[in-house]
Amino acid sequence: MSNQLGNLLTLNTFGESHGIAYGGVVNNFPAGLLIDFEAIQHQLDRRKPGQSAIVTQRKESDKVKFLSGIFEGRSTGAPIGFIIENENQKSRDYDHLAQAYRPSHADYTYDQKFGFRDHRGGGKSSARETINWVAAGSLAKQLLGGIEIQAYVSSVGDIFCDMPYQELDLRKIDDNIVRCPDEETALKMIDRIKEVKKQGNTIGGSITCVVKNVPAGWGEPVFGKLQAELGKAMLNINACKGFEYGSGFSGAEMLGSEHNDLFNENGTTQTNLSGGIQGGISNGMDIYFRVAFKPVATILRPQESIDKEGKRLTVEGKGRHDPCVLPRAIPVVEALTAFVLADMMLIHKTRKL
Amino acid sequence: MSNQLGNLLTLNTFGESHGIAYGGVVNNFPAGLLIDFEAIQHQLDRRKPGQSAIVTQRKESDKVKFLSGIFEGRSTGAPIGFIIENENQKSRDYDHLAQAYRPSHADYTYDQKFGFRDHRGGGKSSARETINWVAAGSLAKQLLGGIEIQAYVSSVGDIFCDMPYQELDLRKIDDNIVRCPDEETALKMIDRIKEVKKQGNTIGGSITCVVKNVPAGWGEPVFGKLQAELGKAMLNINACKGFEYGSGFSGAEMLGSEHNDLFNENGTTQTNLSGGIQGGISNGMDIYFRVAFKPVATILRPQESIDKEGKRLTVEGKGRHDPCVLPRAIPVVEALTAFVLADMMLIHKTRKL
Amino acid sequence: MSNQLGNLLTLNTFGESHGIAYGGVVNNFPAGLLIDFEAIQHQLDRRKPGQSAIVTQRKESDKVKFLSGIFEGRSTGAPIGFIIENENQKSRDYDHLAQAYRPSHADYTYDQKFGFRDHRGGGKSSARETINWVAAGSLAKQLLGGIEIQAYVSSVGDIFCDMPYQELDLRKIDDNIVRCPDEETALKMIDRIKEVKKQGNTIGGSITCVVKNVPAGWGEPVFGKLQAELGKAMLNINACKGFEYGSGFSGAEMLGSEHNDLFNENGTTQTNLSGGIQGGISNGMDIYFRVAFKPVATILRPQESIDKEGKRLTVEGKGRHDPCVLPRAIPVVEALTAFVLADMMLIHKTRKL
Amino acid sequence: MSNQLGNLLTLNTFGESHGIAYGGVVNNFPAGLLIDFEAIQHQLDRRKPGQSAIVTQRKESDKVKFLSGIFEGRSTGAPIGFIIENENQKSRDYDHLAQAYRPSHADYTYDQKFGFRDHRGGGKSSARETINWVAAGSLAKQLLGGIEIQAYVSSVGDIFCDMPYQELDLRKIDDNIVRCPDEETALKMIDRIKEVKKQGNTIGGSITCVVKNVPAGWGEPVFGKLQAELGKAMLNINACKGFEYGSGFSGAEMLGSEHNDLFNENGTTQTNLSGGIQGGISNGMDIYFRVAFKPVATILRPQESIDKEGKRLTVEGKGRHDPCVLPRAIPVVEALTAFVLADMMLIHKTRKL
Repeated sequence: MSNQLGNLLTLNTFGESHGIAYGGVVNNFPAGLLIDFEAIQHQLDRRKPGQSAIVTQRKESDKVKFLSGIFEGRSTGAPIGFIIENENQKSRDYDHLAQAYRPSHADYTYDQKFGFRDHRGGGKSSARETINWVAAGSLAKQLLGGIEIQAYVSSVGDIFCDMPYQELDLRKIDDNIVRCPDEETALKMIDRIKEVKKQGNTIGGSITCVVKNVPAGWGEPVFGKLQAELGKAMLNINACKGFEYGSGFSGAEMLGSEHNDLFNENGTTQTNLSGGIQGGISNGMDIYFRVAFKPVATILRPQESIDKEGKRLTVEGKGRHDPCVLPRAIPVVEALTAFVLADMMLIHKTRKL
Repeated sequence: MSNQLGNLLTLNTFGESHGIAYGGVVNNFPAGLLIDFEAIQHQLDRRKPGQSAIVTQRKESDKVKFLSGIFEGRSTGAPIGFIIENENQKSRDYDHLAQAYRPSHADYTYDQKFGFRDHRGGGKSSARETINWVAAGSLAKQLLGGIEIQAYVSSVGDIFCDMPYQELDLRKIDDNIVRCPDEETALKMIDRIKEVKKQGNTIGGSITCVVKNVPAGWGEPVFGKLQAELGKAMLNINACKGFEYGSGFSGAEMLGSEHNDLFNENGTTQTNLSGGIQGGISNGMDIYFRVAFKPVATILRPQESIDKEGKRLTVEGKGRHDPCVLPRAIPVVEALTAFVLADMMLIHKTRKL
Repeated sequence: MSNQLGNLLTLNTFGESHGIAYGGVVNNFPAGLLIDFEAIQHQLDRRKPGQSAIVTQRKESDKVKFLSGIFEGRSTGAPIGFIIENENQKSRDYDHLAQAYRPSHADYTYDQKFGFRDHRGGGKSSARETINWVAAGSLAKQLLGGIEIQAYVSSVGDIFCDMPYQELDLRKIDDNIVRCPDEETALKMIDRIKEVKKQGNTIGGSITCVVKNVPAGWGEPVFGKLQAELGKAMLNINACKGFEYGSGFSGAEMLGSEHNDLFNENGTTQTNLSGGIQGGISNGMDIYFRVAFKPVATILRPQESIDKEGKRLTVEGKGRHDPCVLPRAIPVVEALTAFVLADMMLIHKTRKL
Repeated sequence: MSNQLGNLLTLNTFGESHGIAYGGVVNNFPAGLLIDFEAIQHQLDRRKPGQSAIVTQRKESDKVKFLSGIFEGRSTGAPIGFIIENENQKSRDYDHLAQAYRPSHADYTYDQKFGFRDHRGGGKSSARETINWVAAGSLAKQLLGGIEIQAYVSSVGDIFCDMPYQELDLRKIDDNIVRCPDEETALKMIDRIKEVKKQGNTIGGSITCVVKNVPAGWGEPVFGKLQAELGKAMLNINACKGFEYGSGFSGAEMLGSEHNDLFNENGTTQTNLSGGIQGGISNGMDIYFRVAFKPVATILRPQESIDKEGKRLTVEGKGRHDPCVLPRAIPVVEALTAFVLADMMLIHKTRKL
């Protein structure tokens, strides 16, 4: 249903940037899993503001509290409710924006849709909503056993990590604050972000996500193709502008004779331009995809704009904002990937007698 | 739910390439619409095989028959059932493939998922399923009043239509068989496809879709963002490898100061890198997006492959296949866009007191 | 979603009484089941008009045709489309009713809801829709292995089959045309229906359904309780006015000390007032419930009524109608029960690690 | 989807009897409604334990806290999260029950389904879950404008309030602690409950619910019939054993000529055996239905039972329990009715051009 993530394993979330709390309900979670709470908090900490010099300096402890569905450390099969309290809401930072429409924000569209809006910090349209997804997705990750989900920053502006993921050591993703496993490129990215930040500007980029050890058979043949469910989840992330998997847009420039992945005798393929998915169903090879993010719309510079009545005014970002959303978006991409895969895994259990 | 398109306005489809018929049920279609059956058939004809020299030469009449939900020409509010009979199934063309796994097809993954498969012409994984989407989406299009949805081929291999859509005359899309409104580029594309076809090969490309006159306010704020629903629909199309909207992947290379769309006093924006969507909700500007398609996997050349038991064999496409799927995918992209928009429109009706 | 049966295993149907055809799509049906087509047709034949002296004398062959999702006799996991063509539509029988609102029919409410309606034979509101449910539910039944679902007529008017189901020989249900396994009561019921029919009148009654061999564990704890899903399905049947399971309404007159089912050491219970369900989840005991049906609203007698403009007129049933819907509703109750159970069974597969 | 209430307006809940908190997410709630928080709390207070001598003497403040989706007192269209903290969990009261299967409770079925369970106070199967439904349903009620929803206790054991609801003064429902508007019957019911309580026993009964001012047109024609959605909601209530609407089970004893509701010229009907619903769609007349509740399974008497290993033991209810669930179930029935109607109202907005 609309505003819900997942088909069988579902997530309904709530919360606004300057409200009391974020939280959600994970429904139809299987019983019997011993939950690793630290692993979930670890992912929330990777998403947390204030963690490095190249992200927003807001302070939030971002502690998730699970309220139900877990007994003596194990999932019971009952709905899992969770909450993350907001602590550091400086609503007054936004008073000057009550009537203003910030360029490329959702202020205008929310007013058009709903007639009014909670203007504080973007209200519902704030990317702080992704905290719910990290909590729920990191929980879902634990259903996936040995499946590895690793995302990294593959470009910042025009600085690209050109090496294919196979040549990167993905264990090094967290070795630097931008979360690009190629150290040399990472340094360039960090410098670029610092420079942009100094200018009160922001910058876009892309994230590559690699999933290993997904067994063959996950994904649904008609309207629940694995890439479609993954793409939908990613395109729901604030600032996401595009999604491609396997050969992606560059595959559109190729010939069939170049693009086809020939089989080995054991069913693996010699190449993997398919990105681990054929006909919407995993084939056991690595799944990989790339997600494009536009630059954050809030810049610390004056911009011409209008207010609710169409009067001209100048807006200027105040407070503490991200010059580049990419490093903090890594756990969001990983968490949504985990949630989608867990949903597909559960449905798959029912598809054969 | 899984394998269903839409949230409130829903589509459930059925049919396999060499089965008796395709068809589906459109549920929750509003009452009172006078249906233009010719407009629907027109879109099916644009998708039909055999329509030009650069598509498959299979012959199918592809006539849709509506079975319910319409009385005296008007929708009644009851579920609309429809059927499209298969006529030209040459199942024997596929007998040699009963056990073979064709490279980059879904043969292997279907067997892994379901234990066996209908191997004739790809069975359920055949792109002939898109005929259902054209029927249902073209029906849904009629709910959208003055909204214009126009898709065109924007690249074939490395031949790109470089002009932004605003500089193209979209009324010329059907003036040539490749469906690119820039005549000069179209001729190059057609030549390229013919050359590829002669070689028994196939080629990929991309489609750009432009939607005009969507009012501000459609799309849902959390997990039903308009771009996410559009992206999901597109990524379900066979051979689709990527989706980007507005500035897309190139937006990821930009600065916030470059990327932000400044407002005019009437709420329109001076630029439209947002692609008509902010915060997941339409803002009244043109919505545009691009979809990448890989080259068709069936090539008329021998390829090394394996069979169900992992034994080596050679497969070679026989019969009549598309050297390039793009021209016939145009009405598919348009139809899915229409269906998603109609679903979002209906939900939007309920979102404000 | 609205107008859909099932949560994971879903059914979307279409068709009107005097349209071209009925049919539907069963989605997410597991792969690998060898389908017994005769068993499905057998249930359709039990529902068929014209089968005995106490039901409508309309003639329809009611043959179901499966169009997809089955290959070489086995379910493939793809959506299963089916169609049942209408043959015997005498639309003219209804011309006099185009504007009339028949008492206790849905004519008025359809007009109020949708603005107009297909008036022929009740259009969408006709109980002929249940033919879809028998087709789909009898298919779903085959997923349930050794589970027995047996429904019988337990009352007609004030003639009750007073024996508890345990004392009846349920193999005798089809031994008489009213489908009550107690021969003596059956004869009284048949006489009563014939008498009512002679008077151009109709009569209500109730159906009891008994399900054996459901394993413990099916049903969902919050909003998908097994009795709630069963009750919803039954209450969707045309003319259904009530649903009770286990002790039902009579259980509401009891004390806790009388009503509690004490356990045997093997987990079975000494009594079964629970009706095989505790906390919304099957406990392995027989599931049994009773469904109330009002008398058919179409009577072959003049009734005062109004037309669309509120003008007074007299309506009088013409054509061929059921004096009592119960005997033909038996396979409908069984089929819906099977569909709900199959859906719950599939979901249950995912609820434990 | 499974474990979710509603189709478009949805409710996902969480919480266990002795967990940290109950709560939930209401999704797709329309924007712009001024929320009356006191009205919601008032309904929670009507459900609260300890409110009279004939209900459990547990003490809980049962204060609901809304966490999101409301800004400056108005709904924003964003998901509405809420929480109700548990205060008075005496988990030790249940230690003796960790392994025991209480008769006619869900202990056995939860273990069978999920492999283990939170045994404290029934865990997820506790009727305390209904607190979520009262919170969410009372919120939804406010979408319904002038619609009146009034439930009352219509029987306790074999004491029936025999007058039809039209002859009762429904404003008097809360004038006595059993919530039966017929004072004389109410006194008998109260005496009966007190007597039963003294004996450590419990007693069942039924609730009648009357809904006035629903406009014609709500409800969906195929699988979303209004009575089916209402019935499903009611049958999800703990201890509910049956549902009937309009003439209900007694309608099954009638003839068509007796049962049909003849029209007045303005579209109202002279009688209302239909219960305000024809063909699954409201007709503008009063909607009324009755719900049967079995006696509470926890009795303060020794009962023979078994434990998880099948060993014989004696269980005896301790602590504070309801001798009769009816008075506290009144706001639950009203709240679920409101939620279902609000969902149907929103969907109906989309069903006509």
